Amino acid sequence: MTFEWRNAQDRRLRERAERVIPGGMYGHLSTAMLPESYPQFFRSGRGAHLVDVDGNRCLDLMSAFGPNLFGYADAEIDAAYVERMAQGDCLTGPSELMVELAEAFTSMVTHADWAMFCKNGTDATTMALTTARAHTRRRTVVLAQGSYHGAAPWCTPLRSGVTPEDRANQIHCAYNDVESLEEAVRGANDDLAAIFATPFKHDSFVDQRAVDPDYARRARELCDEHGALLVVDDVRGGFRLARDCSWSLVGVEPDLSAWGKCIANGHPISALLGGERVRRAASSIYVTGSFWFASAAMAASLVTLRRIRDTDYLERIVGMGERLRAGLATRAAAEGLSLRQTGPVQMPLILFDDDPDLRRGFFWCEAMLRRGVYTHPWHNMFIGAAMTDADIDCALDAAAQSFAALRGAIPTLGPVERLAALFG
Amino acid sequence: MTFEWRNAQDRRLRERAERVIPGGMYGHLSTAMLPESYPQFFRSGRGAHLVDVDGNRCLDLMSAFGPNLFGYADAEIDAAYVERMAQGDCLTGPSELMVELAEAFTSMVTHADWAMFCKNGTDATTMALTTARAHTRRRTVVLAQGSYHGAAPWCTPLRSGVTPEDRANQIHCAYNDVESLEEAVRGANDDLAAIFATPFKHDSFVDQRAVDPDYARRARELCDEHGALLVVDDVRGGFRLARDCSWSLVGVEPDLSAWGKCIANGHPISALLGGERVRRAASSIYVTGSFWFASAAMAASLVTLRRIRDTDYLERIVGMGERLRAGLATRAAAEGLSLRQTGPVQMPLILFDDDPDLRRGFFWCEAMLRRGVYTHPWHNMFIGAAMTDADIDCALDAAAQSFAALRGAIPTLGPVERLAALFG
Repeated sequence: MTFEWRNAQDRRLRERAERVIPGGMYGHLSTAMLPESYPQFFRSGRGAHLVDVDGNRCLDLMSAFGPNLFGYADAEIDAAYVERMAQGDCLTGPSELMVELAEAFTSMVTHADWAMFCKNGTDATTMALTTARAHTRRRTVVLAQGSYHGAAPWCTPLRSGVTPEDRANQIHCAYNDVESLEEAVRGANDDLAAIFATPFKHDSFVDQRAVDPDYARRARELCDEHGALLVVDDVRGGFRLARDCSWSLVGVEPDLSAWGKCIANGHPISALLGGERVRRAASSIYVTGSFWFASAAMAASLVTLRRIRDTDYLERIVGMGERLRAGLATRAAAEGLSLRQTGPVQMPLILFDDDPDLRRGFFWCEAMLRRGVYTHPWHNMFIGAAMTDADIDCALDAAAQSFAALRGAIPTLGPVERLAALFG
Repeated sequence: MTFEWRNAQDRRLRERAERVIPGGMYGHLSTAMLPESYPQFFRSGRGAHLVDVDGNRCLDLMSAFGPNLFGYADAEIDAAYVERMAQGDCLTGPSELMVELAEAFTSMVTHADWAMFCKNGTDATTMALTTARAHTRRRTVVLAQGSYHGAAPWCTPLRSGVTPEDRANQIHCAYNDVESLEEAVRGANDDLAAIFATPFKHDSFVDQRAVDPDYARRARELCDEHGALLVVDDVRGGFRLARDCSWSLVGVEPDLSAWGKCIANGHPISALLGGERVRRAASSIYVTGSFWFASAAMAASLVTLRRIRDTDYLERIVGMGERLRAGLATRAAAEGLSLRQTGPVQMPLILFDDDPDLRRGFFWCEAMLRRGVYTHPWHNMFIGAAMTDADIDCALDAAAQSFAALRGAIPTLGPVERLAALFG
C-alpha cells in the first residue's frame, strides 16, 4: 500500500539549492539520475530508517552509500564520538587514539602492518597510488575499466575539467579477465608501479561480479614478478564481505588496501593500510589534511571495529541479504518478471531483465519508495546491521506490490527522460 | 619559570606509533621537524589551551594549524554538532543545512554566488583547478613558487611518488612580482585556465608578505584579458583576515575561492565558492566524497559563520596579535636579539635574525614550550579568539624569559640535527 506522498518541502529546498549549489546538487548524492519523486533532502535517520524533509519515512537500503553499517545515530558509537569531542577533537597533534586505531586495524587486517588515516576514500586510493609510485620509482598503474576508485582528477568517472595528463600512466584491463590483465601488464613494459582492484566488480549500471580467484591470484603473481604493488580498493566493500581485507576470502594479500565509508559508522575517516615492505615508501610521501588527525572520528572507529570483531553483524547482514534476494526473486517471478540480482547478497544490485534503458527499474524503485523502501535503480545497495528480519519482510511486501504495479504499467512505460543522455 | 616537564607517555606512544604508522607520524602534525621535546600526542584541548598526553599544559598559538578559531571544545559550536548528529549526520542525502550553509557563505563572501562543500582544503583547491579547466577548456595554471595549495600529487610540497605528469601544465611565478606573473601568463600562450594565489605569502621557513595590491589587481586583469579564472586559496587565511574573501581587503574579487580549516571551528568541512559565470563549469565536474554531505559539520559551520558575522572576534585577534608582536619585539630587543615578525599580526611567523639554520628559533620555541607556550619555529601561527589579554601577557612573560635563556645559550648552540637535510 502506498502512503500519502508529500514533497512540498523538498521542492522548496531544491529551488533554494538551485541558486546556491551548482546544478542544485553534485556528486553521488544528487538525485538527478534517480526517479523523480526521490527526495533530495533528509530530515533525520535512525537505525535503518530515514525521514525526508517532508516527513516521509522509509527503510533505507543504501546506508548512505555505505558509511552506515550499524544504523544511523547509533547510541554507543555516537557517544564515543561525543565523549572524545568534549576532550578535544582537532588539536595541534593527534591523541593516543590514533595509535590505538592503527593497532586495531593492523590486528584485524592480515596484510597490514601499518595504517595512515585520512578523510575521503579518494584520499586513501590516491595515497595508495603515490605510495606505489614512491616504492617502485615507476609510474604506470593497471586499473580495471569502469572500476570506481574515487573522484580526483586521476580517477573521477566524468572527464569535465580533467586533462589527458591527469590520466597519464594508466592502462586499463577488463575485470576478471586474466588475459586482459596480463596484456595490460605487458603494456607497462618495465614501468609497472601497481595493479589496482576493487574487491569485486561493483560498477554502476551493470551486473556485479564476484572476483574470480584466478584473477586475484594472477594479479598478485604479476605484481610479485614485476616488483609492483597490489592495491585492493576496499573503500566500498571493506568489512561488508569479511572482518579482514575482502580478498582474504580468496586467499590473496595485497600490499596496500584503501578503506573508508563504514569504518567509523558514518563518521568521517578513511584509511590506507599497508604491509611491512611498503612502509618506507609510505613514510616518504607527503600527504596530510586539516582534519586527518582529529580524534573524535577515531574514537567512533574504535567502537565500530570492536563491534565488527565481536558481533555477528556480518552473518546477520548476509542472512538478511539472502532472504531479500530469494524473496525478491520469488515475488518478481510471481508477476512474470525476471531480475538480475548480482553481487554479494549484502551489497545487492538489482536490475531487471528486458530493461536496457532502466525504465522498469525506475518505475519499480519509485513504487518501492512510495511504499516506504528506499532502493537504488543502478548502484549497489548496502544492507546494514541495524535492519531486522521484520524490515526485510516489509521490503518484500512492498516489493510484491511494486512488482504487481510494474507488471500492470509495463505496456505504457516510456523511456526515462533524465536518463536520455545515457541511453538516448 | 619552566615547569616540570614530563614526556614518558609521549615517548611510549611514539614507540607504539613507530610500529603501526609509517615513520611514526606523517603530514603537518608530525613533530619530526620540531624541537625534540615537542609532544607528538595530546590528551585534550579547551579554549586556547592544550594538555599533552603527559599532562603538560600549554597555551597553543597554533590553533591546530588554523581550524581552531573560537577555541577548542567550544560549547555552543559543539552543541550544534551534537544536536544535529543525534538527528542524523551522514545520511543517504543532505539535509536542509547544506542549503542554509551555502546561503550563509554566499551572503558573507562577496564574490560568491554558490558553494560546494567537501572535507579537505586540498579537495577545495583541486575542485578549483578542475572547475577552471572545465570552464576554460584549457589546462595551464599559474601558481606562485613555494605557495602551499594542499597535499595532492598536483600540489604536495614533496615529490616522492609524484610523477612529472602530475605537475604538467603548471607555470610558476614569484609571489608579488608582477613581471614574473606576466611572464608566466605569456608562457601559457593561449592555454591559461587559472591563476592561483594565496591571500598573502604564507610559505613556511621564509618571511611572510602581505599581497601587493598591484599584484592582486594585475592577476585579476590578466585573468580577464585571457578569459581565465582567478582562484584565491583562502583555506589557511579565510576569516582570519576579513569577514569576506581575504582579497576583499585589496578590492579584488576572484572567480573561485577555496576555504577550509576554521570554517566550522575544527569540525571537518571545507568549501569551494564561486561566482555566477563559473556556475555551469562547477556543475559539470564530478566530485564527491562519502562524508561531504553530512550535516553535523554543517550545523557547526552555521554557528561558526554567525559568530564570525556577529562578534568582534576579528578585531580581538588582531588586537591580541598586535600586542604580541609589539611585546615580543621589545622583549627580544631587551636581550639584544632581533626578530623578523611577518605576516598579519593574527597569523604571525617569527624568525630570528642571524639564524640561517633556525638553531635560535628552535632553542627559543623549546624554551617557550617549557614555559607553557606552544609556538612554531618555521610555520605561521594562528591567534585564536578564545585567547585573552591575560594569555598574551603569559606568552610575553614566557618570551622574556626565553629570550634571556637564548641569549645566554647562543655561544654554545649547535646546528639542529633534525634540520640537517634542510640546512646541511
